[in-house]
Amino acid sequence: MSPPDFSDVLAAAARLEGVAHRTPVLTSRTADALTGARLYFKCENLQRGGAFKFRGAYNAIAALPEARRRAGVVAFSSGNHAQAMAYAASLLGVPAVIVMPSDAPASKVAATKGYGGEVVHYDRYTEDREAIGRRIAAERGSTLIPPYDHRDVIAGQGTAARELIEEVGELDVLLSCLGGGGLTAGSVLAAEAMAPRCAVWGVEPEAGDDGRRSLAEGRIVHIEVPRTLADGAQTQHLGELTFAILKRRAAGVVVVSDAALVSAMRFFAERMKLVVEPTGALAAAAAFTGAVPVAGLRVGVLISGGNVDLARYAALLQAH
Amino acid sequence: MSPPDFSDVLAAAARLEGVAHRTPVLTSRTADALTGARLYFKCENLQRGGAFKFRGAYNAIAALPEARRRAGVVAFSSGNHAQAMAYAASLLGVPAVIVMPSDAPASKVAATKGYGGEVVHYDRYTEDREAIGRRIAAERGSTLIPPYDHRDVIAGQGTAARELIEEVGELDVLLSCLGGGGLTAGSVLAAEAMAPRCAVWGVEPEAGDDGRRSLAEGRIVHIEVPRTLADGAQTQHLGELTFAILKRRAAGVVVVSDAALVSAMRFFAERMKLVVEPTGALAAAAAFTGAVPVAGLRVGVLISGGNVDLARYAALLQAH
Repeated sequence: MSPPDFSDVLAAAARLEGVAHRTPVLTSRTADALTGARLYFKCENLQRGGAFKFRGAYNAIAALPEARRRAGVVAFSSGNHAQAMAYAASLLGVPAVIVMPSDAPASKVAATKGYGGEVVHYDRYTEDREAIGRRIAAERGSTLIPPYDHRDVIAGQGTAARELIEEVGELDVLLSCLGGGGLTAGSVLAAEAMAPRCAVWGVEPEAGDDGRRSLAEGRIVHIEVPRTLADGAQTQHLGELTFAILKRRAAGVVVVSDAALVSAMRFFAERMKLVVEPTGALAAAAAFTGAVPVAGLRVGVLISGGNVDLARYAALLQAH
Repeated sequence: MSPPDFSDVLAAAARLEGVAHRTPVLTSRTADALTGARLYFKCENLQRGGAFKFRGAYNAIAALPEARRRAGVVAFSSGNHAQAMAYAASLLGVPAVIVMPSDAPASKVAATKGYGGEVVHYDRYTEDREAIGRRIAAERGSTLIPPYDHRDVIAGQGTAARELIEEVGELDVLLSCLGGGGLTAGSVLAAEAMAPRCAVWGVEPEAGDDGRRSLAEGRIVHIEVPRTLADGAQTQHLGELTFAILKRRAAGVVVVSDAALVSAMRFFAERMKLVVEPTGALAAAAAFTGAVPVAGLRVGVLISGGNVDLARYAALLQAH
């Protein structure tokens, strides 16, 4: 499979028109004063399903030919991709099987079932979820949609940056959280076509700096599951497609600490009135900590999601 | 002073153009499913200063002749109006004195001073803040801007409903929190001109039902300071101007419990990723509890603000 390009982002935008929310872009004079930059926050925490993942999931399912849609889709994930797949599939009338660990939070299992998804459990210590997903897809003739290393998933994620640049114009810097690389790679596709001087940075938790090391070493580095609050970025490696796009064009990858994520989450709650999950605060934390220099620049910040258990969220707001 | 009309709302909108945020209107399929209605949430928690109060404060100061602006403005309040006045005055280069109780939270005092406001303290148990405000205004030749019973304040608040109706079209019902009546009265002015069949309801905490009683008795009822989480609605009586407008045209006033406010705040955090203060949840709680029947209707819901101390907010999210 060859990497997608900007025409795929435009095709995704057409499929998502009137389906995905065109999420608001917010600004904060306090954030600008703190950083010396002009920051534009693209609020994908206000996206359907509470995260940008809806874009890629919906686009990937909608792009399937009718016959393949009828045979259903399969996803393996315990996080936002799984729920986005179940949600998008339900909107398109497509059967969805979601492979989730048997110890996944009850709330996530319930939400996935609530969207009509069929949940298949596996033991995360003894079984390989990718193998289970592939087996189910083979048995049922259905289509496995991976969480990031897929043309239409990447293209769908790119529609967020496309909307942002369309709305606010040329940017100097665009900051994206980095897990498997879907959002960052999609953002690169939008930025290189629409804002060619814009530097696109991926931001990952310091406990899981495989992306940074991969760009430095010129190969996909695999790591153990990182211990970080940013559960959406607990990926062990980039994808083939996302790495190819990042290597070609991303400005680089930086890391931020979990403490910086909590601080950014508190800023979002207190000053911008937004509930942001830890992973969703990665990009902003890079601006706030100076991990990416932004003073004097026009900077896009992708707030990737807001799906965080309320009790956990409340505890993080209180800790400091 | 005669009550404002829709032409005053239009004049306010012109003054606020490019200054106040045109706040986003969000929808939630979950909220629609819960209520059987189509709900349009106007997010004034995302307004500058974190509340709709910025609209009225800025409009009232901007409407002053140049000579009076130079002499400064005075406000008495411990809440969103005080901070909005300090903020708006700083943008317009107008000196502002804010009369606050000596035991006001340090964070609110700091925020007011941070906007450049001069804070004058009073003892809330022995002194009359309105008298102090009037005295300062008389001594300095400056202009006292009350929190709600003022033509330009009411007209400014009406711009939120104007934007909402302009964006989503005709509404059957419009729900507004009700304290002194500024937001509800302003909403009435916008709705009667732009959506004449729309029923505008005020929503107040059940501990402070002076608005409901005032409409029932046909006179302004005064009450003791109500004990409620909704600190923005701890008003003791409607204003002369706001009462006149509500009496003429509001559909009515309903009350909701503090428990319903907490429930709505949790919904906003969990499902809509929005930080909403207790007062800001009043209107939504009326829809969620059925205090105002909304099934089958197109309903505007004004989320009035998001200014809540983080530790208190976290505690409310955990309580259930």
